[in-house]
Amino acid sequence: MDQDAKKTVLRMIPYGIYVLTADDGKGNVAAATVNWVTQTAFAPPLVVVGVKTDSGAYQIIKDKKTFALNMLGKDQKGAAFTFFKPTKLEDGKLSGQAVHKGTTGAPILDAAPAAVECRVTSIVEQGDHHIVVGEVVEAHMPKPISGRPDAAILEMKDLGDNVFYGCLPRACGSAAIRPIAIASRRARQSCSVWSA
Amino acid sequence: MDQDAKKTVLRMIPYGIYVLTADDGKGNVAAATVNWVTQTAFAPPLVVVGVKTDSGAYQIIKDKKTFALNMLGKDQKGAAFTFFKPTKLEDGKLSGQAVHKGTTGAPILDAAPAAVECRVTSIVEQGDHHIVVGEVVEAHMPKPISGRPDAAILEMKDLGDNVFYGCLPRACGSAAIRPIAIASRRARQSCSVWSA
Repeated sequence: MDQDAKKTVLRMIPYGIYVLTADDGKGNVAAATVNWVTQTAFAPPLVVVGVKTDSGAYQIIKDKKTFALNMLGKDQKGAAFTFFKPTKLEDGKLSGQAVHKGTTGAPILDAAPAAVECRVTSIVEQGDHHIVVGEVVEAHMPKPISGRPDAAILEMKDLGDNVFYGCLPRACGSAAIRPIAIASRRARQSCSVWSA
Repeated sequence: MDQDAKKTVLRMIPYGIYVLTADDGKGNVAAATVNWVTQTAFAPPLVVVGVKTDSGAYQIIKDKKTFALNMLGKDQKGAAFTFFKPTKLEDGKLSGQAVHKGTTGAPILDAAPAAVECRVTSIVEQGDHHIVVGEVVEAHMPKPISGRPDAAILEMKDLGDNVFYGCLPRACGSAAIRPIAIASRRARQSCSVWSA
């Protein structure tokens, strides 16, 4: 297989930008910008997320079996880049973003135009990211979305000409930088991992 | 959960448009327009596709454990609507589209700007569509893609203001129409199922 062709062809898949959040109820909260998301069924409503296995989010999701996907709006590029970096929990805010608890306990970004909360139904443990399958159990949409909903979400291609997952602008062509973050409520400080 | 909010929020996920193809090597070929697709890992390169369980494509994929995802280009709206309808196999063409066999035996549309072939690594049997996990084993890109690859693919939102998966324009608001097609090489005629 031609590796360059594989890379380019897989990059044809268009992606929205989401902040994945999880809270284990024991003082650990994770938030990370993700894009590998698709719905997979109507009944029950299922979504799939590719989650990096050595991330804080993955550990909490595996333990607590709940998570939220916060959809970002076209004007929330800043939030996307914020959660590419390690999460800080300060004064009840996640890296400066106000949040409130969802039905499942997962943090919902106050500024997100929409979010879904999911209960994990299964995890396919294959690859460097595992396949987390979640049943949507709650939907948040503080204000009506005008126009097509899929035209309102921030997309990977809105982040910059050379931004693709696993390839931030200045790292493109060298090692990919993929940040994973976890914040401890108890410690009130963040511990984080940046992986190449 | 507010069902209208759930529907709108899930419709925020942006999708590309693909023709999923499969050939069981026993004379049965399936082709269907799909959109529930995401990559889920870099190593190995994995993709997930939500595939309707009562479709011909699903039966072949489950049996043969291989499939192809043909990416459609911005100018291939016609092909997208063609494979929403039952597939016909005539003179070696799939519903009028010239195809050639890929490495795995799955049909590759000659006119598709790109395609990946996959071997199924697992199927999560949950929901009205099951989650087919495929490892990318071949990539086709007959001509270089200019610009961002994810700006070159046909998207759900390019199909029309009111087109969403499970909701074709005239059916929107009433029962959803989702076509599934399978063509038999032996019979040289198509049998198809339209489900509400």
